[in-house]
Amino acid sequence: MRVLILGGDGYLGWPTAMNFAAAGHEVTVADNYLRRRIAEATDSDALLPAPSLSERARIYAAVSGQEIAMRIGDLSDPDFMFKLFKETAPETVIHYAEQPSAPYSMRGFREARETFQNNLDVTFNCIWAVKDIAPDAHIIKLGTMGEYGTPNIDIEEGWLEVEHKGRKDTFLYPRAAGSLYHTTKVLDTDLLWFYVRTHGLRVTDLMQGPVYGISTDEADLDPRLCPNFHYDDIFGTVVNRFLVQAVAGVPLTVYGGGGQTRGYLNLRDTLQCVRLAAEQPAQPGELRIFNQLTETFTVNELAERVQKAGQQMGIDVAIKSIANPRKEKEEHYYNPVHSGLAELGLEPHYLSETVLGGMLERIIENRHRIDINRIMPRVSWS
Amino acid sequence: MRVLILGGDGYLGWPTAMNFAAAGHEVTVADNYLRRRIAEATDSDALLPAPSLSERARIYAAVSGQEIAMRIGDLSDPDFMFKLFKETAPETVIHYAEQPSAPYSMRGFREARETFQNNLDVTFNCIWAVKDIAPDAHIIKLGTMGEYGTPNIDIEEGWLEVEHKGRKDTFLYPRAAGSLYHTTKVLDTDLLWFYVRTHGLRVTDLMQGPVYGISTDEADLDPRLCPNFHYDDIFGTVVNRFLVQAVAGVPLTVYGGGGQTRGYLNLRDTLQCVRLAAEQPAQPGELRIFNQLTETFTVNELAERVQKAGQQMGIDVAIKSIANPRKEKEEHYYNPVHSGLAELGLEPHYLSETVLGGMLERIIENRHRIDINRIMPRVSWS
Repeated sequence: MRVLILGGDGYLGWPTAMNFAAAGHEVTVADNYLRRRIAEATDSDALLPAPSLSERARIYAAVSGQEIAMRIGDLSDPDFMFKLFKETAPETVIHYAEQPSAPYSMRGFREARETFQNNLDVTFNCIWAVKDIAPDAHIIKLGTMGEYGTPNIDIEEGWLEVEHKGRKDTFLYPRAAGSLYHTTKVLDTDLLWFYVRTHGLRVTDLMQGPVYGISTDEADLDPRLCPNFHYDDIFGTVVNRFLVQAVAGVPLTVYGGGGQTRGYLNLRDTLQCVRLAAEQPAQPGELRIFNQLTETFTVNELAERVQKAGQQMGIDVAIKSIANPRKEKEEHYYNPVHSGLAELGLEPHYLSETVLGGMLERIIENRHRIDINRIMPRVSWS
Repeated sequence: MRVLILGGDGYLGWPTAMNFAAAGHEVTVADNYLRRRIAEATDSDALLPAPSLSERARIYAAVSGQEIAMRIGDLSDPDFMFKLFKETAPETVIHYAEQPSAPYSMRGFREARETFQNNLDVTFNCIWAVKDIAPDAHIIKLGTMGEYGTPNIDIEEGWLEVEHKGRKDTFLYPRAAGSLYHTTKVLDTDLLWFYVRTHGLRVTDLMQGPVYGISTDEADLDPRLCPNFHYDDIFGTVVNRFLVQAVAGVPLTVYGGGGQTRGYLNLRDTLQCVRLAAEQPAQPGELRIFNQLTETFTVNELAERVQKAGQQMGIDVAIKSIANPRKEKEEHYYNPVHSGLAELGLEPHYLSETVLGGMLERIIENRHRIDINRIMPRVSWS
C-alpha cells in the first residue's frame, strides 16, 4: 500500500519508514526537522549522530534495495500538507509529526506555544487533507497513554461505558494529561473524534506508553540507520535515560518517590503495532483506539532492573531519588487494559535482561559521546 | 473590581460591558471586530446597525455617566494580549473572544481553520497572560452546552462521578460536540483544566445554551446601544431567527424533525450569570463549571411558542420542516442539571409570551431592514 509517514525523521518515524518499506509498502516520509532544531537549541543531541533523511534513505536503499521517498517541509503549513497528499495519494497516513517532549512543552510561553500550534495545526491539516484529498485513507495517529493520566479506575481502551442514574451511554474515556505536550494529544483525539463522526474518516488512535530500544531489524543493517537515541531530560524516555546514566556512572535519577507507574514497550513492538493497525485498518466512521503497551512498571522497578542488568555486566549502578520536577502522583492506582493489539497479532518483546544488556553494550561502545550535563532535569513544572 | 472583557463587541460582550459598568465595576473591552468582518463577508449583517465600540462607549457614557475603556486588537496575537493585561491589571477576565458561528465553522477549510486557530490561540494566550501577568485573576470563560452533545444520560454540571468495576473517580463530563465551533470549546475546556490543575488558575467555565433577547436595562437606554441582533443562518440563534421569520411572513424553518432539545436562556439571564460568577469567584486551582440555561425546549416547541405569540399580535405564522443541514439527532434524551447558578442567586426570565411579544414589537419596528435571503441555511454539514 501507499504509506505516508508524517514526522518520518523521528525516533519512531524513521524505523517505521524502513519497516514498512521492508514489508514491501510504498513509503514517503515528510518532516521539517523540528526535533533536530529543538535538540540543537536545548543542547540535547542524541547519543549517536543521525544523518539527514535523504542520507539515511540513500544508505537504506544501498543496504536493502528498498526506496523511501522523502519531502522536507512544514506540515503545519496547509499548502505543504495538501500538495504532499496530492502527490502521494496515500492509502495509509501515519501521523507522528508532533513536538514530543513534555519538558520542552513546559519550559515557557514560547516553547508551549510552539508545541501547541505545531501539534494542533498538523493534526488539523492532516484531517482536512484526508477529508478533501484522500477520503478513503486510514489515519494512524500516535497518541499517548499520558492522555489518560492516572485515574483511580481501570483504563479501558479509549472508550468507557457509563451507567448513571439508571441510564447508559458510551463515551471517549475521560482524559487528564500531565503536561502540555500530552494535553495537545488529548485535543488531537477530541478533534479526530469530531471529524470521524461527522465526516466518516477512518482513524486508529494509538495510546502509546514510553518506548525504549535502539535495535530494529532494519536499523541493525547499518549503524547510521539507528533511531535517534536520546538520553537527555528533554527527549530521553526513562529507560533509555537510565541505561545511559548506568554507563556514565551517574546515579539513576528517580523523580520523587518513584512509585509512578506507566505502561512501556519495546521499539520493535511499536513497529509491530503500527504495521498491524495499518494492515488491518479501521472502518469508515470508526475511531479505533488501542492502548499500546506491553507491560507496566513503577519507576523504582525500572531503576532496579537497570541496576541488575548493569551488575550482570560488571557495572555498579546507584539509584538516587531527586526532587520531582513534574507535577504528578507518585503513588497511584494504574491498571490499563491492552488487549486490542494482542488480538490483532502483537507478539511482545518484554523488558528482559537480554534486551537491557544489548542496549547497555551499544551504549558502552559509544560512552565517549555521553554528555552528563544533559541528564539532570532542566525544566520544572512549577 | 477591574474587569477585562475579551470579545467586548459581541452579542453578549457589549451588553456585559454595560452591565458591569452600571454595577460600578471598572471595565475595559477588547475586540478585533472579527464577527463584523465575517458578517460582512457572508452577507449576514445584524437587523439593527451597531455603531463602533468607541461610538457605543461614547453614547453609553453620555446616557449613564459610566466609562467603558476599549482597545481594538487581535487577541490571538500574544503581544497584544500581554500588553492589554499589563495595562489593565484585571481582577476578572471574561472571555467571549471566539468565532461563535457553528455554520461558519463548517463552511470549508478556510473558515474552519480561522475558527480553530482564533478560538484556541485566544484561549491559550489568555491562560498565559493570567498565569504570568495576573495570576490572581479569575477567568470566566464562555463555553457552551453544545460541548456535551446529546448523551443518553443526564448532563451533570461539568463533572461526572464514575463507578467502574468497583472503583470510583470523578472526571470532566465527557464531551462530543456537533460542530467544529462547539468542538473548539471542548478543546478550550481541556486546556483550561490542564492549566488549572497544574498552575492553580481560577476558572469558571459557563456551559451556555442558545441565548435569545434584545433588551437589557442598559441597552434600553438608547436604541444605538442594542445588542447585535442576528437573524441569519450564520450568526442568528434559533429564537431570534424564528421571530424575524414570523415578522417577515416566512414560515419558521424547523431543521428536520424538530425534536432537537436544547437549554435556552434570556440575554438578561446571561448578564446575571456572568455577574454572579464574577462576584462569587472560583477558588485558586478550581475549574468551576455551570450549565447556563433556564429551561429546555424542542425546536418544535419553540416554533409553536413563536407561532402563538405571533397570533396574539395578529400575525399569521406558518411552520415548515426543511432538510436538516446539520448532523445531529432529531429525537434524543436530554436532561441537563442546572442548579449551580440558581444557588448563586440567578432569578430566571423565562420565555413568556410577554418576552416574545416585546421582541416581536421591536422587530416589527425594524421590519424594513429584514433581508429574507439571509434566512435559509447556506452551509451544510455533509
